[in-house]
Amino acid sequence: MASVDVPVALLGYGTVGAAVNRLLNEQADDIERATGHRLRVVKALVRDLGKERQFPAPDGVLTTDVADVVGDPSIAVVAEVMGGVEPTGGYVLDCLRRGKHVVSANKQLVARRGAELFAAASEAGVQLRFEASVCAAIPVIKVLRESLVVTNVHRVLGIVNGTTNFMLTEMEAGRSYEEALAEAQARGYAEADPTDDVSGADAAAKMAILATVAFNSRYELADVDVVGIDRIDPLAVAAARELDMVIRLIGAARLENGKVDVRVGPALVDRHHPLAAVEGAFNAVMLQGDAIREITLEGPGAGGVETASAVIADMVSVIGTMGTGFLQNDAAWRSLPRLEPGEHRSPFYFHLAVDDRPGVLARVAEALAERNVSIARLIQHANGDGAAIHVVTHEAREGSLKEALEAIAALGDVRRPPQPYPVVSERGVTELGWA
Amino acid sequence: MASVDVPVALLGYGTVGAAVNRLLNEQADDIERATGHRLRVVKALVRDLGKERQFPAPDGVLTTDVADVVGDPSIAVVAEVMGGVEPTGGYVLDCLRRGKHVVSANKQLVARRGAELFAAASEAGVQLRFEASVCAAIPVIKVLRESLVVTNVHRVLGIVNGTTNFMLTEMEAGRSYEEALAEAQARGYAEADPTDDVSGADAAAKMAILATVAFNSRYELADVDVVGIDRIDPLAVAAARELDMVIRLIGAARLENGKVDVRVGPALVDRHHPLAAVEGAFNAVMLQGDAIREITLEGPGAGGVETASAVIADMVSVIGTMGTGFLQNDAAWRSLPRLEPGEHRSPFYFHLAVDDRPGVLARVAEALAERNVSIARLIQHANGDGAAIHVVTHEAREGSLKEALEAIAALGDVRRPPQPYPVVSERGVTELGWA
Repeated sequence: MASVDVPVALLGYGTVGAAVNRLLNEQADDIERATGHRLRVVKALVRDLGKERQFPAPDGVLTTDVADVVGDPSIAVVAEVMGGVEPTGGYVLDCLRRGKHVVSANKQLVARRGAELFAAASEAGVQLRFEASVCAAIPVIKVLRESLVVTNVHRVLGIVNGTTNFMLTEMEAGRSYEEALAEAQARGYAEADPTDDVSGADAAAKMAILATVAFNSRYELADVDVVGIDRIDPLAVAAARELDMVIRLIGAARLENGKVDVRVGPALVDRHHPLAAVEGAFNAVMLQGDAIREITLEGPGAGGVETASAVIADMVSVIGTMGTGFLQNDAAWRSLPRLEPGEHRSPFYFHLAVDDRPGVLARVAEALAERNVSIARLIQHANGDGAAIHVVTHEAREGSLKEALEAIAALGDVRRPPQPYPVVSERGVTELGWA
Repeated sequence: MASVDVPVALLGYGTVGAAVNRLLNEQADDIERATGHRLRVVKALVRDLGKERQFPAPDGVLTTDVADVVGDPSIAVVAEVMGGVEPTGGYVLDCLRRGKHVVSANKQLVARRGAELFAAASEAGVQLRFEASVCAAIPVIKVLRESLVVTNVHRVLGIVNGTTNFMLTEMEAGRSYEEALAEAQARGYAEADPTDDVSGADAAAKMAILATVAFNSRYELADVDVVGIDRIDPLAVAAARELDMVIRLIGAARLENGKVDVRVGPALVDRHHPLAAVEGAFNAVMLQGDAIREITLEGPGAGGVETASAVIADMVSVIGTMGTGFLQNDAAWRSLPRLEPGEHRSPFYFHLAVDDRPGVLARVAEALAERNVSIARLIQHANGDGAAIHVVTHEAREGSLKEALEAIAALGDVRRPPQPYPVVSERGVTELGWA
């Protein structure tokens, strides 16, 4: 097979961009063996030509003028590794409209402007791939779109933020939230301003993309129900251990009876569940579907080289499918309604700090039973002049649990309003919710 | 995009073949949305036209004459789901030589006749895909070949046989080998003759394929070093629990200093390792490489529908890459030497049943130290008139450990020859071996 030279361009030449160029150089033979093509970076858009780079680009490659990329008809594939929504989105649109395939590592861009970008790609007959935008080197997008094409995926459960997973693993080992955050910052997992991670916003963007691809219906970032780990109750971390569970920030997307629900929040995960084994800064995504039962993918969800590896895999896949029409359509070909608030079902955990008075447990149990919330496990400890009660419910309607907890909070026996956490336990039948 | 009708054929129409036809029918719209093509089964080779089928084929589709498939120029893609090495291999070769892409679910065929088949595919300019031959619906081949194209994968660790994993999980819970086997047979996980599973032969074929794809060098089935679970020591199962580990049948392929080593055998796995979380009949494969650190894929490793899903994913991928030259070359483009016996390194576990005499431990420790095998953990229990000693070594040369154990067996204090098990513990730095 004759080798074909393919000029490619990068939008951005930071850590990821430089790693893409380095890997394209070092692994050129591997790429050629797989595709018959050699990919060569001919242009890379930067803001500052003089800045020092981890892997310097050859003379003439760096440019500050996006027209050098968009206007060069020889460039067939563009990798967007600059981040941000503007002006990035405009650049990507221009590339697509000029008939260039685009590979993006940018979750915010894909989550916020997906509809517009995929429509432009489809119209121009080119591909927009975005593997690196979700969980770096974990090939979850490719698996969803290419391996599971005949499986109706109806649930996606994920640990899609490494920073918070690292922090929760540390807290499990006895550290406080503040200590865990400081350690994450010291290791470079968390930014100086960790809001995007600890609030769940980063995870929400990834779950919006995963839900869109899995259910073929666009799910907007703003529709994701998000609870962060910043107000997590240390007692819940300790209780998880006692219940042989762990606490994880879980993203959960599901399609049930034609309605979609996507949420991110802390949940208790049974120790035998595959997601409980995900420790430190790793990510994992579990896909449940008709033909496959469930497939779990685990790996590093961040990192410059890991992200670059995913960017190149997408470029290689574009080269390998160019001209066949494969995956040129927007994955979101239908529009499914959102599940109404309160309607989804999950087992839940909550704990109660109560005064140790006769009849407390009976009143709590009655408040739950009246709303059809049944108790799966209950542990009561004496605790000074009061008691701590840990409750795990069977699967319950979120709205009913909420009402029951409000009624319990109003009882007068309870020292502070109980905060519920969904429980992830059985495989394949997992139900999740945040009340 | 106009819809294109693609006539496809099946070699075999048993459980998997019928499921392929059913899924192609039921999910035709999904496939068309992804590829712009509709796949339609026009021929299916069977031995007995009159046999009842789970999903009946339309009139005229079933045939007992392979020439109806091989000789039909309209058929572009053939799925081999009949199993066996002969006459299957001959049929597949004929299809490839006639310019038909072939998708195979047949690990024995790919492991035994890969060189010949891939050469024929390459020569004819067609693809031979084989995702379903390893771990059914877990897309490990696609991930290795397409997502990790710029990652030098240097190690593959896998639980690639669900039957033995189910049995070991049962034994962990206290059942005997015989009870676990009977339960596996009752559930349909194990055949009446379970030899292929419990001897490790099934896992070995899968590991040979994975090593070939991961290291781009053909690894013959006969070169895989195999230890089954049929002679596993119940004491080792109990010891694993005491050491906070589990026993798993681990396939391990690695490339180190330009040499390849592939083996299958029972190993102790640290409870924090992702593979320890793989329970029941599930499979998992961990890929370690330069750019990705490690990615683990877990899911059902068997099942008719799961296998059919992988077969169709391969057919869809063929359609999506036809004419681009993508993945038409044999993955094995180089020939790497095998690691010499005894040369590979791993931490090991073994236990000793010894007479409780003064100096036993000293003599054991000396026999190890003399051969540079150092002890990481040691637990001694009184046991009637003797003692049980559990030893976990640091990473050691397999040959040295073997010599040390022979010397220990010759001491006279030891009641039976110790049997070593490799230990899988730290992630990313895992070392494995079977002495």
